[in-house]
Amino acid sequence: MIDWIDNYNARDWQTTTEGELRYALIGLGWWTADVAIPAIESSENGTTTVLVSSSVEKAERLAADHDIEHGISYDEFHNGVASDAYDAIYIGTPNAYHLDYAETAAKFGKAVLTEKPMEATVDRAERMVEVCEDADVPLMVAYRMQTDPAVRRARELIQEGFLGKPMSVYGNNSQPLLEMIPDPDQWRLNPDLSGYGTSVMDLGIYSINTTRFLLRREPVAVFSRMESRHEAFADVPDEQAASILRFENGIQMVSTSSQHAQQDTQLKLTGTEGQIELRPAFHGKCTLYLSRGDVSVRVAHDTFDSEQEMREEFDYFADRVLTDSAIYPDGRHGLQDMRIIAAIHEAAESGETANLE
Amino acid sequence: MIDWIDNYNARDWQTTTEGELRYALIGLGWWTADVAIPAIESSENGTTTVLVSSSVEKAERLAADHDIEHGISYDEFHNGVASDAYDAIYIGTPNAYHLDYAETAAKFGKAVLTEKPMEATVDRAERMVEVCEDADVPLMVAYRMQTDPAVRRARELIQEGFLGKPMSVYGNNSQPLLEMIPDPDQWRLNPDLSGYGTSVMDLGIYSINTTRFLLRREPVAVFSRMESRHEAFADVPDEQAASILRFENGIQMVSTSSQHAQQDTQLKLTGTEGQIELRPAFHGKCTLYLSRGDVSVRVAHDTFDSEQEMREEFDYFADRVLTDSAIYPDGRHGLQDMRIIAAIHEAAESGETANLE
Repeated sequence: MIDWIDNYNARDWQTTTEGELRYALIGLGWWTADVAIPAIESSENGTTTVLVSSSVEKAERLAADHDIEHGISYDEFHNGVASDAYDAIYIGTPNAYHLDYAETAAKFGKAVLTEKPMEATVDRAERMVEVCEDADVPLMVAYRMQTDPAVRRARELIQEGFLGKPMSVYGNNSQPLLEMIPDPDQWRLNPDLSGYGTSVMDLGIYSINTTRFLLRREPVAVFSRMESRHEAFADVPDEQAASILRFENGIQMVSTSSQHAQQDTQLKLTGTEGQIELRPAFHGKCTLYLSRGDVSVRVAHDTFDSEQEMREEFDYFADRVLTDSAIYPDGRHGLQDMRIIAAIHEAAESGETANLE
Repeated sequence: MIDWIDNYNARDWQTTTEGELRYALIGLGWWTADVAIPAIESSENGTTTVLVSSSVEKAERLAADHDIEHGISYDEFHNGVASDAYDAIYIGTPNAYHLDYAETAAKFGKAVLTEKPMEATVDRAERMVEVCEDADVPLMVAYRMQTDPAVRRARELIQEGFLGKPMSVYGNNSQPLLEMIPDPDQWRLNPDLSGYGTSVMDLGIYSINTTRFLLRREPVAVFSRMESRHEAFADVPDEQAASILRFENGIQMVSTSSQHAQQDTQLKLTGTEGQIELRPAFHGKCTLYLSRGDVSVRVAHDTFDSEQEMREEFDYFADRVLTDSAIYPDGRHGLQDMRIIAAIHEAAESGETANLE
């Protein structure tokens, strides 16, 4: 138990401590500015050399603030400005722009780390996979939960049989979007920029992807109900959504998500002999609850916040790229989430179960 | 806040401290023997005078143990033996026998408190309502959560606007039935005795009924997926079930239940401004979690166990019967749960949404 606690944060994925990956960060919203930049600053094998924004002034100002070499515009990026200064890009723009930046990066032979969901539609996500495969550049989707220590320890425990036979999963991710970003015209509420919708694309994806990672199994059929009643959500079907996913082996997952509710994140996996729960699950300070029979254990890591989650993710990506190793959440892994989300929207629209091949 | 804590257990339903209701307890399984009998012993306005079992020896032995006047057989009960000795019956038999005892009680003008679910089918539950209404005897369904202090305080808070606009509900009730009762031939796995199935009838009903009580709203449409894979569950469709219930005003409820999983009970109601959660929710020591914005509160009542829940329920029932007052969870209230459960089974079978009138 002492070893288990002391090795809780162990980077079981790390293969090298040599080398450094130089990043161009695309899209300077609050997540990139407040979380990604500090995460790379504290990273062991990464450094930011280029910032890219629609506003060259914003890019230059933020670059100066953080002592970063280049601050350039989107057009300059596409034209190859500073392309010798970075090895990889991180895409933090609205979903519908991810492909464009991945295409340019592939053209210049750069590795691609894109935020999730990969793109706005399955078609564009497929195109991204093709473009990166054709150019032979690494492509990773930024599922930071996969390198969170709590999630990795949960995955090991499940592999060792902690749950007995896994039976069911409950995942919820809800937040008050309009209180966090008080703008009814924000891109997450615009289907041209966000894609199929907002709460499943932006929030439900955490529960679904983390469950795929934890169980090493895939959903085979989905059903969903969505509701949009508040006027700010008039253009998207899913102010909130509730979905039932049937995984391989008859495992039932329920996934709920809402952009208009009190903040709450929970992921609970229940088996015949035990239960593993993450709560909060998805936004830092991930706390692990374990129970078997009458004994329960709480494992907290109170200082491990979203920035540290992002640092782990960047260091994992750099480790893979620097050693030319396989990436777990690669383009095809992310594409599967896009197909699941599209099926969820299809099921909600038809009122019928949608099957996944 | 001091008042709120000191009045946490207040019996806001109590209208009299006079009088005493005399019970005949029908069906002497472990719940009646270990929980109901002690609950009535500690009750303020109830007393057990008759025990009724298939085995007259068992009835007499348990009656002697607890200093109860009569121990009689089912046949003797139906024939009116000791009918002057009790004012009301409590039915704790397998679901499919509830109606028979209610009919006899109605014939003798006795009040009826029946365990939930009311009966095995909607038709038999409707018949129970008619029989009791025709005989003008009180009928209550034993939803003990409705008199649990945590649930009542939650209901007041919701009424006062704690959640803002209620948006969604998650309820889970799972247990390892075959570890608790290691008998594959037990009545809960026999649809002739249990009714439509096992996990929704026996466990899911807690989440659904408590949500109806808390929100004062009714489901209008349901969808469900059920799985039975273990051989002990071959005759019932729902070793486990996941259901989406659409309530009035677009509130989404997800209800999951399993008879073959690690024990877990949770009921979580989320609104635009707050969240109220019960966990454990349904088997005593009900703990209340409240959050609005960044502030959260935990209210525990660690000594309030299932027996005390039952005492509150019996005392509520006696209070209503002794004063001839309206019963909240009356026959028609319980009948609505039967209709919801039947619709859930219909939806699971058809793969389509089932509407409730």
